[in-house]
Amino acid sequence: MPTQSPVTVLGLGLMGSALAAALLKAGHATTVWNRTAAKTGPLAAQGATPAVTAKDAIEAAPLVIVCLTTNDNVRALLEPEATALKGRTVVNLTNGSPAQARELADWAAAHGITYIDGGIMAVPQMIATPGAYILYSGRDEAAFATHRETLSALADTKWVGTDPGLAALYDLSLLTGMYGMVMGVSQAYALIGSEGIPAREFAPLLTDFIVAMTHGLVPGGAEALDSGRHLTDVSNLAMNRQAFANFTSAFNEQGLRTDLFDPLQDLLDRAVEQGHGADGLSRLALLLKKD
Amino acid sequence: MPTQSPVTVLGLGLMGSALAAALLKAGHATTVWNRTAAKTGPLAAQGATPAVTAKDAIEAAPLVIVCLTTNDNVRALLEPEATALKGRTVVNLTNGSPAQARELADWAAAHGITYIDGGIMAVPQMIATPGAYILYSGRDEAAFATHRETLSALADTKWVGTDPGLAALYDLSLLTGMYGMVMGVSQAYALIGSEGIPAREFAPLLTDFIVAMTHGLVPGGAEALDSGRHLTDVSNLAMNRQAFANFTSAFNEQGLRTDLFDPLQDLLDRAVEQGHGADGLSRLALLLKKD
Repeated sequence: MPTQSPVTVLGLGLMGSALAAALLKAGHATTVWNRTAAKTGPLAAQGATPAVTAKDAIEAAPLVIVCLTTNDNVRALLEPEATALKGRTVVNLTNGSPAQARELADWAAAHGITYIDGGIMAVPQMIATPGAYILYSGRDEAAFATHRETLSALADTKWVGTDPGLAALYDLSLLTGMYGMVMGVSQAYALIGSEGIPAREFAPLLTDFIVAMTHGLVPGGAEALDSGRHLTDVSNLAMNRQAFANFTSAFNEQGLRTDLFDPLQDLLDRAVEQGHGADGLSRLALLLKKD
Repeated sequence: MPTQSPVTVLGLGLMGSALAAALLKAGHATTVWNRTAAKTGPLAAQGATPAVTAKDAIEAAPLVIVCLTTNDNVRALLEPEATALKGRTVVNLTNGSPAQARELADWAAAHGITYIDGGIMAVPQMIATPGAYILYSGRDEAAFATHRETLSALADTKWVGTDPGLAALYDLSLLTGMYGMVMGVSQAYALIGSEGIPAREFAPLLTDFIVAMTHGLVPGGAEALDSGRHLTDVSNLAMNRQAFANFTSAFNEQGLRTDLFDPLQDLLDRAVEQGHGADGLSRLALLLKKD
């Protein structure tokens, strides 16, 4: 494979190591650095160049990918290296919030550094496999276009806009959807398990039902939210509220805790009390703003 | 269409009316009864025979389908009619708990009545359309076999076992999974909406992500729960707990309430404190039992 453009990876946890390995596999001259140097070993064996200092690593490539555990660590690492970073592009794939991404973008802009924020929709094992993708956002879309092919070695790329906070916002929002599903699946397995039914007997029905309901409720909810029309003749909040009381009592009857679902009962109660009983479930998103 | 076996439907709310209409459409001589007689009008216009009393309705057919708002109402309706019901099959499609279904089955058995409990996995608009199905359970599987073809006019049939509580258990467990997804989708839309992004721009990503994660986590969770092996090298509870703290702070930063997700943080904390940090998310179902 011909040598592709050089790339630097700062931070070699499970994810950073997976990213560096994918770049090496795609033929990029890859320089790696980690706070504790021992983690560079396996990557050096795959052809990476370990750098002794972060500054050395940064100076080795025009594209610097950063993947640490927090954005506080990213600031602490990058701020002393502003001079070395000047004129280069930083792609920050550290988990964080929209506000953190915007602060880093401001800091970078003030120092002549191009900043792209990213959100990885994959676990390390999924890097460079089909289905994995990374969300990107930043003020300089042209810089993203320059590096898009290189970044494609990591996972599919999805550009979400020129507000640097958007990649983090999309990332957090998608994971929020997933964690809700996890709460539902956990409680569902607890319920079916309370009668000793093997989970595998129930699993295909559970998968099919959640998938079918997701295909219905997510686009339907988007239409209602964008149009502001939440009225429904299918399954309104008053009916859901009434039906939901059965759940909490069934959980109790089956010896289960109700904590994960009590707040949904409160939310349904609040929705009906505020006069939204005839609306569909889409209304709930609007009731999650702080008063 | 030739006339099919006669059926009685007791209770003509939205769901009961949809059931009766489906039976009429399939060619069954259908007798209908409702506490307030006015609701029989539209069905009579479709060819149903309205009965003046519940007893008259019961005596019109060997198969009596009941669909009321609660199982307390079912008991109040059926108990005075034990004599008329003797030798007939009651299919109770009222929402309820496993314990309620078992109590009704005991009562029916004591009076020579065959009892089948059912859980409808559909809204009234979906009755007799593809994708809708009804879960059934009861002590007399042969009685179910006798009436299966008739019941197929309502929706696909899924027999789940001879414990009469199982249809309700499966039904509640599936809906529990769905309500978790609803919490996730609601909070995700609130989060994306906090930056004014149209929900329809985000919806396809959200659908695809929840569907992909459901296809991974539900079967994987079943395998872990049935084998008792929860250890994972992908995304363990300690990592999820740490990542999850970002969510609550992002919700706050974006002006959103955190109520729906606070209990998941507590559950992750509890899991790690109890020494399950290296386990996968599948472990959570086991921590939902009451102490």
